[in-house]
Amino acid sequence: MTPRAYFAAPALWDRYREPLFAAFAQAGLEVDLVVDAPDPASIDYIIYAPSAALQDFSPFTRTKAVLSLWAGVERIVGNATLTQPLCRMVDTALTEGMTAWIVGHVLRHHLGMDRHIVNPARDWVPVSPPATRDRPVAILGLGALGQAAARALMGLHFPVRGWSRSPKNLADIPAFSGPESLREVLTGAEIVVLLLPKTDETENILNAATLAMLPRGAVILNPGRGALIDDAALLAALDAGRIGHATLDVFRTEPLPRDHPYWSHRNVTVTPHIAAETSAVSASMVIAENIRRGEAGLPFLHLVDRRRGY
Amino acid sequence: MTPRAYFAAPALWDRYREPLFAAFAQAGLEVDLVVDAPDPASIDYIIYAPSAALQDFSPFTRTKAVLSLWAGVERIVGNATLTQPLCRMVDTALTEGMTAWIVGHVLRHHLGMDRHIVNPARDWVPVSPPATRDRPVAILGLGALGQAAARALMGLHFPVRGWSRSPKNLADIPAFSGPESLREVLTGAEIVVLLLPKTDETENILNAATLAMLPRGAVILNPGRGALIDDAALLAALDAGRIGHATLDVFRTEPLPRDHPYWSHRNVTVTPHIAAETSAVSASMVIAENIRRGEAGLPFLHLVDRRRGY
Repeated sequence: MTPRAYFAAPALWDRYREPLFAAFAQAGLEVDLVVDAPDPASIDYIIYAPSAALQDFSPFTRTKAVLSLWAGVERIVGNATLTQPLCRMVDTALTEGMTAWIVGHVLRHHLGMDRHIVNPARDWVPVSPPATRDRPVAILGLGALGQAAARALMGLHFPVRGWSRSPKNLADIPAFSGPESLREVLTGAEIVVLLLPKTDETENILNAATLAMLPRGAVILNPGRGALIDDAALLAALDAGRIGHATLDVFRTEPLPRDHPYWSHRNVTVTPHIAAETSAVSASMVIAENIRRGEAGLPFLHLVDRRRGY
Repeated sequence: MTPRAYFAAPALWDRYREPLFAAFAQAGLEVDLVVDAPDPASIDYIIYAPSAALQDFSPFTRTKAVLSLWAGVERIVGNATLTQPLCRMVDTALTEGMTAWIVGHVLRHHLGMDRHIVNPARDWVPVSPPATRDRPVAILGLGALGQAAARALMGLHFPVRGWSRSPKNLADIPAFSGPESLREVLTGAEIVVLLLPKTDETENILNAATLAMLPRGAVILNPGRGALIDDAALLAALDAGRIGHATLDVFRTEPLPRDHPYWSHRNVTVTPHIAAETSAVSASMVIAENIRRGEAGLPFLHLVDRRRGY
């Protein structure tokens, strides 16, 4: 029987309609793709985005999986009515875009680019940056995005240490886990990249205590989640010069309100949530692959562990 | 007999003295290292920098090789008195630093970073950059530096085409050579990186004709040699908006004179010849290795082809 998939994010329909049909065709799948669900019990898959109005998943009694178009699932994972398997989006195009943002901003700070981009005094001070080998970088979060960033930075010879809440078995990335080892990873890290999922445990993980573990002048990059940072603590550390710079792509409120102190701080760069954008084309191929797996009785890709929250 | 090496760049002696002795010791070499040469006929090796006063190499009748501390040899290769083998410096630390500068500035332009670094209007315009896969990069020059840059950019999924005057047999980099194929490499290249040596053939290789082969808005990065660019043609193309931006690290006259139009052009970034700095430690190991090879009768590393000029 042709599986029925309910596209529950109408605002994204124009972007996804053609890529989804193309991906289904490429996977050799016939899918009855619908944009409303008058009969929830007839739906096999829900394609979901946090912008969707759908909040009550209990009528979807036959649904084999809820397939999110987003990497972050914090806005849905706590929904008590959601008892169906939930899959996150892991999109190679998103990973590549995020890696470019991270490597670009790490190098911007490493090279001290800003002083050349804006140099009205025409200062010619030929001091080369240190070797990348002498610029330790910490990456908090070692999912697909953190691993890709770590490998790209290690390829440029930055000494990278990764950290995650639960242990990861990675052959090629120095990886640490658990609260006790966070200090070890942050001590000496001149650049810190935040790529953790937002959970109760990771909220405000960068706070007055953890910021104080960093060497003076350290740089913070946050392309992960706004809630990972205690904003007041970061602003205090920036004001005191203990933190040299923060480049932030994500915020508790977006767009970042025009009167937010991040906008006016001379040592903060705001980028408008552009570090990673899901590509409709490659995301549709991930959706198609998961429907193929569901129909074939194979395990889903990128299944969320509800207990851990990601 | 202990070979005698003449360190002919007195201004660099303080930086190199200890690293050279350490490198000789590590290579198991005994070397009589001297900073003056009252008896040129007693000198086995000359360690050279363009800042050295030494211009007449004819009295150095026993010298087995002139070992330059610089990658670029245009200030010495045409010296008619220099009949001894000449070796360029190929320093891994320099290669890594150059790669970081190139990847950093490619990503700066790819990501459109400047508009976020300076954003007094607090514009929040969440438009992600295109995929790196959709941003073609041309690298002119495929020596050690060009190859390293190409591989690093390909690792980030930029489509890279390399070009060199003479053919290179590279398995992993799409490589073109010869004047006819220059148009093929420049057509469609949104970012161009100049890493050619300065020779009669490469001077002004970026001129009105070759700039016109690039798509509108292309970005030029020059960490190679100032003379590769026809400055007047580049300024005209920038003024006309045909070239979107130029980030230049090297110039015909350095420091760049304060009244040079590059300083005041809104679409030019000047970096003060910092893209690549030879590391005394790693360069000393290259010098030691070449002396070891000379003493063992083995071919020298990085020998300059005098006819080609690099």
